[in-house]
Amino acid sequence: MLVEAEREQSNGGRPRARLRVPAERGVLIGVDVAETYVHVDAFDAALTRLSRHQRDLVDRSEPGYVLGEVADCIREAIVANPRQVLGVGVSMPGQVEPSAGVSVFAPNWRWADVPVQRMLRDLLPVPINVDNPLKATTVAELWFGAGRGVYDLVTVNLGTGVGAGIAFGGELIRGVSNNAGEWGHTTLIMDGRRCRCGRRGCVEAYVGVPGIIATLTEEFPEHRYGGDDQQRFVANVRAGLEAGDPEAGWLIERLSHQLGEALANLVNLLNPERIILTSWTATALGAWLLPPTASRMLAQSIAGSATASQLVVSEIGENPVGLGMATLALEHYLEEVGLPARRGFSARSDG
Amino acid sequence: MLVEAEREQSNGGRPRARLRVPAERGVLIGVDVAETYVHVDAFDAALTRLSRHQRDLVDRSEPGYVLGEVADCIREAIVANPRQVLGVGVSMPGQVEPSAGVSVFAPNWRWADVPVQRMLRDLLPVPINVDNPLKATTVAELWFGAGRGVYDLVTVNLGTGVGAGIAFGGELIRGVSNNAGEWGHTTLIMDGRRCRCGRRGCVEAYVGVPGIIATLTEEFPEHRYGGDDQQRFVANVRAGLEAGDPEAGWLIERLSHQLGEALANLVNLLNPERIILTSWTATALGAWLLPPTASRMLAQSIAGSATASQLVVSEIGENPVGLGMATLALEHYLEEVGLPARRGFSARSDG
Ligand SMILES: [Zn+2]
Ligand SMILES: [Zn+2]
Repeated sequence: MLVEAEREQSNGGRPRARLRVPAERGVLIGVDVAETYVHVDAFDAALTRLSRHQRDLVDRSEPGYVLGEVADCIREAIVANPRQVLGVGVSMPGQVEPSAGVSVFAPNWRWADVPVQRMLRDLLPVPINVDNPLKATTVAELWFGAGRGVYDLVTVNLGTGVGAGIAFGGELIRGVSNNAGEWGHTTLIMDGRRCRCGRRGCVEAYVGVPGIIATLTEEFPEHRYGGDDQQRFVANVRAGLEAGDPEAGWLIERLSHQLGEALANLVNLLNPERIILTSWTATALGAWLLPPTASRMLAQSIAGSATASQLVVSEIGENPVGLGMATLALEHYLEEVGLPARRGFSARSDG
Repeated sequence: MLVEAEREQSNGGRPRARLRVPAERGVLIGVDVAETYVHVDAFDAALTRLSRHQRDLVDRSEPGYVLGEVADCIREAIVANPRQVLGVGVSMPGQVEPSAGVSVFAPNWRWADVPVQRMLRDLLPVPINVDNPLKATTVAELWFGAGRGVYDLVTVNLGTGVGAGIAFGGELIRGVSNNAGEWGHTTLIMDGRRCRCGRRGCVEAYVGVPGIIATLTEEFPEHRYGGDDQQRFVANVRAGLEAGDPEAGWLIERLSHQLGEALANLVNLLNPERIILTSWTATALGAWLLPPTASRMLAQSIAGSATASQLVVSEIGENPVGLGMATLALEHYLEEVGLPARRGFSARSDG
């Protein structure tokens, strides 16, 4: 087993060690199970992508069907890359609990306590680890994105749902039951707008795409950006911004006020070095959204933390979830063979 | 140099190692510099208290005067305990920045960029480390309080100011410039009540003692609990609760609504195993405040994190700040001699 250490120079000057595994050592599989599709990426052991595979999901309500499609798609990736499978990392939406034998609680999907890891292991004779997209994205940013060389990092996912991935000292923070990062369900306005989680006034209820649509519709009931299709709505807002449309301009101003405040909460509580905005919404609107949001975040941050924190948009062009899950699978593999790539901070699985 | 390893059984079943130094190895000094006084505690190397010393502060505006009193009081403790001084830990209010050579920014005190560590080192020929009370309290709870055996912990200080100390994996989280934990200046109500930090709607503006006084006075302008003296106000509220006074009952209901929501934000973002309420306010009002606050916190926490988090009041009877700072001084000493008691997560001081 050959492993070489790579030392990067961090911004702060402190070198950090990373393990790099020779490419030909085997195959890693990263899986992104999303609302309407399964993406499976195969990588070599140096995390260069070898192939991509996909399935559409027509009915996400039935765990057996969804996990059958996931397993089929993984099998296709394994067949296409006939080398030893070092590990498979599967990102599932919702809350993933390793202490419960890795079951998944996915409220949007109406899944509760589905033992995803066990079910997939019954279907596939390879090492499988399950986690959620926030964790995967954060790992991808730490290894390959704007998080390289950053010790104290937050990635913020802006989409239909809203959440954060947190790292301290270059390590992913999981919390006691692997649920750290539910920033979308922290308060922006106590007793405010109803959130899909049941609380009121959550960050997500304002800066998640359905919340953004509600904000615009409350102010401009006659707007023409649509709203049934979230991707189309965001594309329409972008077109409106490009055309100098005042409704779109108003929306960015309002959203940056809310988002900047909610991000300043992360700055004040966690004092990170960098916050990375990820997802399709950040990519589509980032050019307009980033400057006023960063300005509001700075104004709302306490003195000693404000200047220490940068706000950036992710530079990982493609979907980082598959890459992050393959990286997590590599970390698990290295731990198994006694060569941990990073220190612990796993959610405990003593049970 | 004798060091023995102690292994505690955590609640989760995973043992954790702690280093324990023989008592006679030397003296550790823990210093709590507060609004109106300096407390200096001397401990043996096993962290048993040997003596306590105190100075009143009549003018906190002048760093030279304050640090002179601090140095005098430390000198008194050293003279009273004639053994090798292994280290001195000084807790200062405000933001302590190791990357700036440990200066302190204390807005309430109108101190900015005062190089406390250097000034104290000029006055005393002993190893001195400076930090703030939140960090000290959290370390005390981890080693000696309700944080023993807990990996993912938050301590919440309820007083004039409000803040949090955060630990993951049994390690204190500092953030990139040692300012992590400013939970008091995260949002409860966007654009709400003005906070002394300059923001609006901060948690502290509602659950800090001045905020509690404002809440009661807004609802009951004629109340008789006072308000100029914060300690007396809290004592009067406690007496009102003991007497079944409806105004005090209303206040606890309102405060627990706000505090429970703000604590649920910590649960949702950080997924800790335990949250410990500390300080004189928590001690005085805990019996009334804890049950409704815990209930509100549970209701406002996301499913996978709610049941994983316990809310408790600190069991450390005396002021934990001196004990915590002495413990931090011991950790620094052990690092210096190549026996780190815990892994890193220090704020970087590369500069
Ligand atoms: Zn919510
Ligand atoms: Zn504030």
